[in-house]
Amino acid sequence: MTYRTNSPSDKPAINFEVIARDGEARAGILTTRRGIIETPVFMPIGTAGTVKGVRFEALEDELDARIILGNTYHLWLRPGVEVIRSCGGLHRFIGWQRALLTDSGGFQVWSLGDLRKITEDGASFRSHLDGSSQFLSPEISMEVQAALGSEIVMALDECAAGEAPHDVSRQSMELTARWARRSRARFDSLQSEEMDLGRTEVTEAISGSQALFGIVQGGAHLDLRRESLLRTREIGFDGYALGGLSVGEEKSVMWKVVSELAPEMPANQPRYLMGVGTPEDLVEAVSYGVDMFDCVLPTRNGRTGQAFTSRGKINVKNAQWALDTKPLDDACLCSVCRRHSRAYLRHLYMSGELLASVLLTHHNLAFFLDTMRRVRQSIRSGDFMNFRQEFTEGLKAYEEERALST
Amino acid sequence: MTYRTNSPSDKPAINFEVIARDGEARAGILTTRRGIIETPVFMPIGTAGTVKGVRFEALEDELDARIILGNTYHLWLRPGVEVIRSCGGLHRFIGWQRALLTDSGGFQVWSLGDLRKITEDGASFRSHLDGSSQFLSPEISMEVQAALGSEIVMALDECAAGEAPHDVSRQSMELTARWARRSRARFDSLQSEEMDLGRTEVTEAISGSQALFGIVQGGAHLDLRRESLLRTREIGFDGYALGGLSVGEEKSVMWKVVSELAPEMPANQPRYLMGVGTPEDLVEAVSYGVDMFDCVLPTRNGRTGQAFTSRGKINVKNAQWALDTKPLDDACLCSVCRRHSRAYLRHLYMSGELLASVLLTHHNLAFFLDTMRRVRQSIRSGDFMNFRQEFTEGLKAYEEERALST
Repeated sequence: MTYRTNSPSDKPAINFEVIARDGEARAGILTTRRGIIETPVFMPIGTAGTVKGVRFEALEDELDARIILGNTYHLWLRPGVEVIRSCGGLHRFIGWQRALLTDSGGFQVWSLGDLRKITEDGASFRSHLDGSSQFLSPEISMEVQAALGSEIVMALDECAAGEAPHDVSRQSMELTARWARRSRARFDSLQSEEMDLGRTEVTEAISGSQALFGIVQGGAHLDLRRESLLRTREIGFDGYALGGLSVGEEKSVMWKVVSELAPEMPANQPRYLMGVGTPEDLVEAVSYGVDMFDCVLPTRNGRTGQAFTSRGKINVKNAQWALDTKPLDDACLCSVCRRHSRAYLRHLYMSGELLASVLLTHHNLAFFLDTMRRVRQSIRSGDFMNFRQEFTEGLKAYEEERALST
Repeated sequence: MTYRTNSPSDKPAINFEVIARDGEARAGILTTRRGIIETPVFMPIGTAGTVKGVRFEALEDELDARIILGNTYHLWLRPGVEVIRSCGGLHRFIGWQRALLTDSGGFQVWSLGDLRKITEDGASFRSHLDGSSQFLSPEISMEVQAALGSEIVMALDECAAGEAPHDVSRQSMELTARWARRSRARFDSLQSEEMDLGRTEVTEAISGSQALFGIVQGGAHLDLRRESLLRTREIGFDGYALGGLSVGEEKSVMWKVVSELAPEMPANQPRYLMGVGTPEDLVEAVSYGVDMFDCVLPTRNGRTGQAFTSRGKINVKNAQWALDTKPLDDACLCSVCRRHSRAYLRHLYMSGELLASVLLTHHNLAFFLDTMRRVRQSIRSGDFMNFRQEFTEGLKAYEEERALST
């Protein structure tokens, strides 16, 4: 494998160091041009330039999120790349000075279903906003992500359906490999043209340029996954992601792929499992050596009244909480749990109050980010397997209480 | 006039001291059982137990709101008084330990129009939530407000239409006077029965009980307003409010009533102008000696994309802000203006993002509360008239720029 950084200064765009291992699980330090990220890390989703309902002050100060994810598809369509370029890139546009990872837009376009058509060249689709005809290619995705100026850019991939047969998955994987090469080429030329709007000064450790991650596809088929990994590594990226999982396939399929593939991914580079998952999923994936995660669950479910707690999920709508003066999670030290009761949160939700989404999202992010802190701590102290067992058992507590009470 | 406090300890429920005057304008210190409030003060609206979209941490820390308003009508119907009672009163239910003022519910019921019928006994109406039949009387309003446990309780009043003729306004004013007496009687018995869920320890200065304010009605008719003030003072309250203004009458009518009546209200007690108003309204009312205000403008208009600034109002929807990297208000030091641009706020609003409401509401409250801080400062330094002139001229800046540019 050749490990290329393609930075004009011949320094890497990011630096990744594994500082502790416990089985396959690993704790690391990912150094970006906008700060240090301890891994395993959960990245809150900031789709349209905002983690929905959460102020950046809360993300920085209390939640201490070191990196958030922006969606190229959404930002490209609205407000549009010219607005963001004119405002100096995504960091300056939204007022966030820490690290950003942007996806390629490919997954959102793929999710449009009948509204998109994929060819060798790229994906033609109709905007979900106004029905206008749009075209996304590896080159365009790199150009948009350069204008966004994220620290970590994702190559444009093509995602097969969760249960796609071998031949369909092969075609998709091969297209992904060709698009990865085109992504790499356009990314490199944009970097050398200094088109990246997030560029910072070169430091001793890093180049100040964007980093580019490749994506491993191949659906449920391990041979295709391995081939995809090999072909992606041949091109050479700053990190590697597992894509096309958690897209409707059986959960056992996902675990087969993650458990086999993650340990085979480059040991000295970050491994990113895209779009996963529940708290228990994160902990399980860490046990196979995954370093990075993103998922809509804490934010989206917060808006629909679901809270994640150390004893399982709570639906705040339930009448059983109407008079409950306890916090969402006794074990949680977040500002929502320190101040507010289930009864109040239920009232806010039932009244359609904005603050219900704001507070539930905040708590859920606190729970996810705190879980990752505890994961890192347990790996560093060689206690990950115990942590995992206790954590997973704790998550079942409410289920068991309910079973006993009926 | 007899000034009664009706507190079991014979101490007043609140203490009010005027510490500076500039013309009719006055700066004071209102001591409640939950903290000291500098006046003139603006009270953010917390209708259903939440200042919509604003976390209590922000209200306490950055905005430093010392008192917020809760709506008896809304809280009574949802979550209901039994829920709030069971959770220990409104402060504990919502997680706010500073002062609360609750209105009587009368104005909301009056606003229901054809859905309500008012008799001597009280107001029959149908709930806006489920159409159920409800009945509000002075006694019930006092009972609900005792369960809420607010620091300042408002007597139940009846509000005539803004342009009501003399005979209609007289009937309404006289009913208000009779309801004020019933409010006072039920309030006093509830206090002596210790039914107030917000009760605190008696201190050297205050009793730890709730305070009760009377409301002056009489529509646009100065003779009725004066008679109402006299009859309300005869009953005796801890403070006096001007009600039934800013309800559709001509603005000149409101100013005629406020300018004549406010200076005639008891000099040593707080004067509260209900439901008013714009930043310029607040400053003008202060010039007639008003001490307390509440208004939905900063919160409601924030949710519909309107920002109040020192140079006039901004509608963030306007395309002219699409590339504008300046803050909403150059002169504002709030956390929204320190971090975010008009372009970003416009993007959030156009994208229907929760954060648009959150940030615009925060800024608007910061602007209103900061304006009141500057009002108090200018009164204390004897510079109120200069402040008022500069402030009012500043608010026209955008209008003048627009006029020049067309």
